[in-house]
Amino acid sequence: MKKRILTGDRPTSPLHLGHLIGSLQNRVKLQREYDTFILLADVQAMTDHFATPQKVRENVLEVALDYLAVGLDPNLCRFVVQSQIPEIAELTVFYLNLVTVSHLRQNPTVKTEIQQKGFGDSVPAGFFVYPVSQAADITAFGAHLVPVGNDQLPMIEQTREIVRRFNSLYAPVLTEPQELLSAFPRLPGLDGHHKMSKSLGNAIFLKDSADEVRRKVMGMYTDPHHLRVDDPGQVAGNPVFTYLDAFDPDVAGVQALKDHYARGGLGDVKVKKHLVEVLENVLKPIRERRLAYAQDREAVRQIVRRGTQQGRAVAAETMKAAREAMGLDYF
Amino acid sequence: MKKRILTGDRPTSPLHLGHLIGSLQNRVKLQREYDTFILLADVQAMTDHFATPQKVRENVLEVALDYLAVGLDPNLCRFVVQSQIPEIAELTVFYLNLVTVSHLRQNPTVKTEIQQKGFGDSVPAGFFVYPVSQAADITAFGAHLVPVGNDQLPMIEQTREIVRRFNSLYAPVLTEPQELLSAFPRLPGLDGHHKMSKSLGNAIFLKDSADEVRRKVMGMYTDPHHLRVDDPGQVAGNPVFTYLDAFDPDVAGVQALKDHYARGGLGDVKVKKHLVEVLENVLKPIRERRLAYAQDREAVRQIVRRGTQQGRAVAAETMKAAREAMGLDYF
Repeated sequence: MKKRILTGDRPTSPLHLGHLIGSLQNRVKLQREYDTFILLADVQAMTDHFATPQKVRENVLEVALDYLAVGLDPNLCRFVVQSQIPEIAELTVFYLNLVTVSHLRQNPTVKTEIQQKGFGDSVPAGFFVYPVSQAADITAFGAHLVPVGNDQLPMIEQTREIVRRFNSLYAPVLTEPQELLSAFPRLPGLDGHHKMSKSLGNAIFLKDSADEVRRKVMGMYTDPHHLRVDDPGQVAGNPVFTYLDAFDPDVAGVQALKDHYARGGLGDVKVKKHLVEVLENVLKPIRERRLAYAQDREAVRQIVRRGTQQGRAVAAETMKAAREAMGLDYF
Repeated sequence: MKKRILTGDRPTSPLHLGHLIGSLQNRVKLQREYDTFILLADVQAMTDHFATPQKVRENVLEVALDYLAVGLDPNLCRFVVQSQIPEIAELTVFYLNLVTVSHLRQNPTVKTEIQQKGFGDSVPAGFFVYPVSQAADITAFGAHLVPVGNDQLPMIEQTREIVRRFNSLYAPVLTEPQELLSAFPRLPGLDGHHKMSKSLGNAIFLKDSADEVRRKVMGMYTDPHHLRVDDPGQVAGNPVFTYLDAFDPDVAGVQALKDHYARGGLGDVKVKKHLVEVLENVLKPIRERRLAYAQDREAVRQIVRRGTQQGRAVAAETMKAAREAMGLDYF
């Protein structure tokens, strides 16, 4: 039997090149080998978007379109909308008893995010406890493996702790997940300074038109000291070259461009035009598939609905076993 | 239309005289005037009994038997088992976004309980957030009124804050509850020093046999300086007289006993024997009804099942409205 994977996204914006290189390409590769559940984590998105729920709502279908566009196959993967799986909320509530407040406060990932978001002590309780909710996501679907980057390891560790605690207190009904560590390169944004993100306005979206991509690339940050074509340019930290590394299959060609740029004589406009072509090769088939699917949004909705039903069936079985293990099954 | 009440108990022990005087008698009085939902709060009981779930499980039916025994009418009240209402968990998860960690830390009731239980910083997250879970209980059933004592007012206030936040952020779909303040006298235990509680071993249970009641009363704490019958005795703080105040309908007779005891010449054994009679008058019909219902536990299970189904129908409507208000309804 295939091992099961759980992965997913918080649907707060359409997906961009950062997602593509960071996780989507990997998921497409894994979908034949593993039984794949992909969570459209709208409940988790609400933990810091509770004041703008329409943003979450709108993006559930957008993200599903992105999934289909990059080649995730709904016959291989289940796209599951988190808010439609009450069992995840039920598990979350029971798991909250198995973790102390001080332990949550020490979670390195949450700690960093609380700082980044400037929450301080006014962090919403829902955000504070989201590692517990993630443990519920992972275990509800009985995932054996969770593809993560290094920075997400504390989440898997927290899940494992909860699983061990639950299984030893009640009965061994939960699956202890393992990380499927991937390099997950983090793509910088167009500004070259931050990681690519919708909220920073520095993203190229999978659904951007060819014109938008061109306009965005031509406005990208490069080496600010590279004023004239003849000047030597800086390759390190220059996002134009980072993108070429990520998306240009012609590695030798990229190296030649880098060398030329470094010794001088290669203008930014020329490199950017090349990057536009490279990205267009990547994005054109994605964009075309996306447009085709977007013609019939109702069909996409049905794909998501079906995946969610399949996900619910699995989660309901897990909850039934968990309820029996605790002895809270009366009727 | 009748206003709706939510009330309930954490099923961690059979109910005792403290519950009878503190809330059950009041519920029996209110059940004709109000549409009554009574929650068998097993999920909340798990917040500090997660390591002994069998204690929670066993007591769900015991407490239901106590309800029937004291005269709560299953045709007027719905007995609802909390763990069978996933909508409460779902609402809890969404409400957690609307409350900050620091606000929860300042909840006076939780603060006191954390101290009493000696949790310190190792308080389980589930216990820490239980005011949010109570807000979900109250609002899931659309309760207008919650019978509480003064010490529970912070819980109602927290619920109101969450309701206002939710209704103003999304849509006005939740009912803002009011407290139904009652005197709720707190009965001391047999030891006279602490409130009556199963865990302190100082309780007279509604299901205790006449012999057990007699034995417990005869062993009760009284005035430790009242060594000889002729000595003047202390009435204040003497639980024997507190119980008489609570359960003897002959107020003048109790006053006469108090006066006699205070001036000397009335022995503890004599007062206790009187108390045994008084309690027997209260407990006998309760015990008999309880025994009758206990003959057919399956029928009791069906009563609880039906109440839970009725409760679930109401909670499902609330959750549907809440989901639509947030826009998280896709299919």
